[in-house]
Amino acid sequence: MSDSFVAGLREWIKIPSIGVDPAHRVDVQRSAEWLAAQLSEDGWPEIQIWDHGPALPAVYACWPAVDPQAPTVLVYGHHDVQPVDPLDRWHHPPFEPVTSGDELRGRGASDDKGQVAMHLLAVKAHLAATGQNAPSVTLKLFVEGEEESGSPHLRKLLEDHRQDLVCDLVVFTDTALHERDAPTVNTGQRGVLGGEITFFGGADDVHSGRAGGAIPNPATALAKLIAALHSDDGRIALPGFYEDVREPSTQERADYAELPFDEQKWLAHNGGGAQALAGEPGYTTLERIWVRPTAEVNGLSSGYTGPGLKTIIPATATAKISFRLVPDQLPEKVADQLREFVAKHTPPGIRAEVSFRGEGVPPYAISPDDPANATVKEAMELAFDQPVRFARAGGSGPAAVLQAWLGVPLVYLGATLPDDRVHAPNERVVVPLLLKGAEAAAHLWRMLPERLTR
Amino acid sequence: MSDSFVAGLREWIKIPSIGVDPAHRVDVQRSAEWLAAQLSEDGWPEIQIWDHGPALPAVYACWPAVDPQAPTVLVYGHHDVQPVDPLDRWHHPPFEPVTSGDELRGRGASDDKGQVAMHLLAVKAHLAATGQNAPSVTLKLFVEGEEESGSPHLRKLLEDHRQDLVCDLVVFTDTALHERDAPTVNTGQRGVLGGEITFFGGADDVHSGRAGGAIPNPATALAKLIAALHSDDGRIALPGFYEDVREPSTQERADYAELPFDEQKWLAHNGGGAQALAGEPGYTTLERIWVRPTAEVNGLSSGYTGPGLKTIIPATATAKISFRLVPDQLPEKVADQLREFVAKHTPPGIRAEVSFRGEGVPPYAISPDDPANATVKEAMELAFDQPVRFARAGGSGPAAVLQAWLGVPLVYLGATLPDDRVHAPNERVVVPLLLKGAEAAAHLWRMLPERLTR
Repeated sequence: MSDSFVAGLREWIKIPSIGVDPAHRVDVQRSAEWLAAQLSEDGWPEIQIWDHGPALPAVYACWPAVDPQAPTVLVYGHHDVQPVDPLDRWHHPPFEPVTSGDELRGRGASDDKGQVAMHLLAVKAHLAATGQNAPSVTLKLFVEGEEESGSPHLRKLLEDHRQDLVCDLVVFTDTALHERDAPTVNTGQRGVLGGEITFFGGADDVHSGRAGGAIPNPATALAKLIAALHSDDGRIALPGFYEDVREPSTQERADYAELPFDEQKWLAHNGGGAQALAGEPGYTTLERIWVRPTAEVNGLSSGYTGPGLKTIIPATATAKISFRLVPDQLPEKVADQLREFVAKHTPPGIRAEVSFRGEGVPPYAISPDDPANATVKEAMELAFDQPVRFARAGGSGPAAVLQAWLGVPLVYLGATLPDDRVHAPNERVVVPLLLKGAEAAAHLWRMLPERLTR
Repeated sequence: MSDSFVAGLREWIKIPSIGVDPAHRVDVQRSAEWLAAQLSEDGWPEIQIWDHGPALPAVYACWPAVDPQAPTVLVYGHHDVQPVDPLDRWHHPPFEPVTSGDELRGRGASDDKGQVAMHLLAVKAHLAATGQNAPSVTLKLFVEGEEESGSPHLRKLLEDHRQDLVCDLVVFTDTALHERDAPTVNTGQRGVLGGEITFFGGADDVHSGRAGGAIPNPATALAKLIAALHSDDGRIALPGFYEDVREPSTQERADYAELPFDEQKWLAHNGGGAQALAGEPGYTTLERIWVRPTAEVNGLSSGYTGPGLKTIIPATATAKISFRLVPDQLPEKVADQLREFVAKHTPPGIRAEVSFRGEGVPPYAISPDDPANATVKEAMELAFDQPVRFARAGGSGPAAVLQAWLGVPLVYLGATLPDDRVHAPNERVVVPLLLKGAEAAAHLWRMLPERLTR
């Protein structure tokens, strides 16, 4: 089963389904068709490709449970992949997958084709182990084609296919383990809100000898605003920003503290080679990236940035800023807080514009004590044969949107690694971990009817 | 005399002597040759073109006084001109001068060919008025070809031609009146020191979901440094920065206060259309730009600055910063102060680099009470037939270098206007003002032998 699993995944990776690139739209369609054909071959009785726009093609499938009274589980994933730039840093063509030791390398091997394939394998394993001709729960599969584009039409898909997607639990596949030797169950993701602040001074850049010292400098003013965004102790200074922040429980903090954490390794693999840790006092690094909100400057531009010197007072200055949000923060509330903050920190003679990219992605978390979540942990421990701890993810995804629209709990089940180089050259997946993940999911389908009350 | 003056200046303007553009090097040479030919036609007995590099060609001329005991005056100017971009905003080709009312329009008409030509005319007027065949003072003319490039070889020229340039007084031509109806004598220019500060975080930009909140953000850190560069009241917070700042005298401040100043007009013409005045408390706008030092951010760049959003923690952040300096500040001392300030404001995990563009330009000022300066004012009042006040200039130039190397006082005599659009499209000069300036210089050569003790 493992050989045919890898062979199938290789075929799928060969289809360059880069959703953000219009030139690859046809490949997103081909990728959806490949998945539909695979599901058909695996025996799924109901398969649909949702390709009537505006969303890029999504695949939906359903396999009713042996027992019509059994709960329904919706497995969410995506089949679009990230672009491949910079191409010259790949050691092999990104869409010609290669095997190296126990790794399979190629764009999408980890994010998210590998984890969707893992769930297909799980169903086969579940049927083989139980000897059933249908799963113990009604399984629904929803694999969208726009996740790497920020899922712009997800709400519309959920609305258009409300009846198809009715379920009792969502299993979110796009998630990783803490480390190879420290398997974890994710219990949440941060939200994100990104925007741009521009300060306008005069109509033109001005010679700094002519007017320097007598008119406001938008770059200096913007620097003062950014400086004021954090207090000296590193906390975010937007009034009311922490009001809705849910503190992690003592148990969660204890769980995180037990996870292995090598500072130098983390800085090298996750910190982009940063030279030191930094952040909010009173929280560990893992807490800072998992359960605490942030305000980060993503970009700055103003005036003259070429070689040498140009002694001007710039006409404008712009900062791109994004916030990572944690439960129960609301992107729209933080947007209002930022607007108010900018208005308060705009000096006389400067005009400010604030804009946001979309409405933001809300944060999501599920309690470790939730019965479905506890079952995932148990299934993982059976498969991995070692203690599994709860963890969180620092990034953002559509979990909160799925949970809110479908009105049911959402749990995470994935088996990739944080250093799989997703979104980067030489993406890989560790195959034995996917096999264990499939085993965990197979256990989960078996266990859920008893644990999940509808 | 006026018609032939304008005709000559038109010919000179037609030579596109853009010194910063290597493609126009030959034109700088042609411009020097034009000037030398004109001086020869005017009867100057000694004329040299200094064109043996590394400096672009400069013109030197000398006309010994009637009385060998008379003092020597060195007139400084430049014959290179600014580039003409953006060309599409000119209403006529920049090197095909046109006359409009009493204006002559073209690149270099004001800065500085017009004012050099004004001094040539002054010598002719002086000889005509006195009936002498030689001037009352020994006149030396030094017209460099690199001023718009920042005079990079000026010190070398001064060193190589030390004997030629010996004098008792320097007259600096590259200066303007306050307003058409408010003639002024400039008594100084600010210095300038420009540099670049870069903060380095990690080796690569990092996904802000992955590490946001746990590593230092160089853009945020740089904003905090820039914010700290000014205290809340708008003063510059570099320790020791104001130690060497010479306060203007009560008389100087009273003089400046008597000059006409229309805030809206000033903002439109000098402030690039800025929406309000701003600056150091306790000083007027003219004081802020003339006698007070500044620290201005000239440019910012960090992270992602394209369209949309990229949720990264940037690897680096850079600010271009320049200081305008006033007597008796020294650029090298301010450079040290900035280096110390950056070191103090570099947070853990960030590496800083500070670099300066050259060694900076020192500030210069001469007392209104200096006998040579008082004589310039008197000569201007005779020519303009109205009260002339002392003023300053906010920009920077080689005055301090000339004064320091030649070891004699330096005074300013020019008759252009701040809104002549120098360095911008549609540069112009007001011809009647140049004629009055020439008359003032003619008076000056006549009066100086009695006023200037050698």
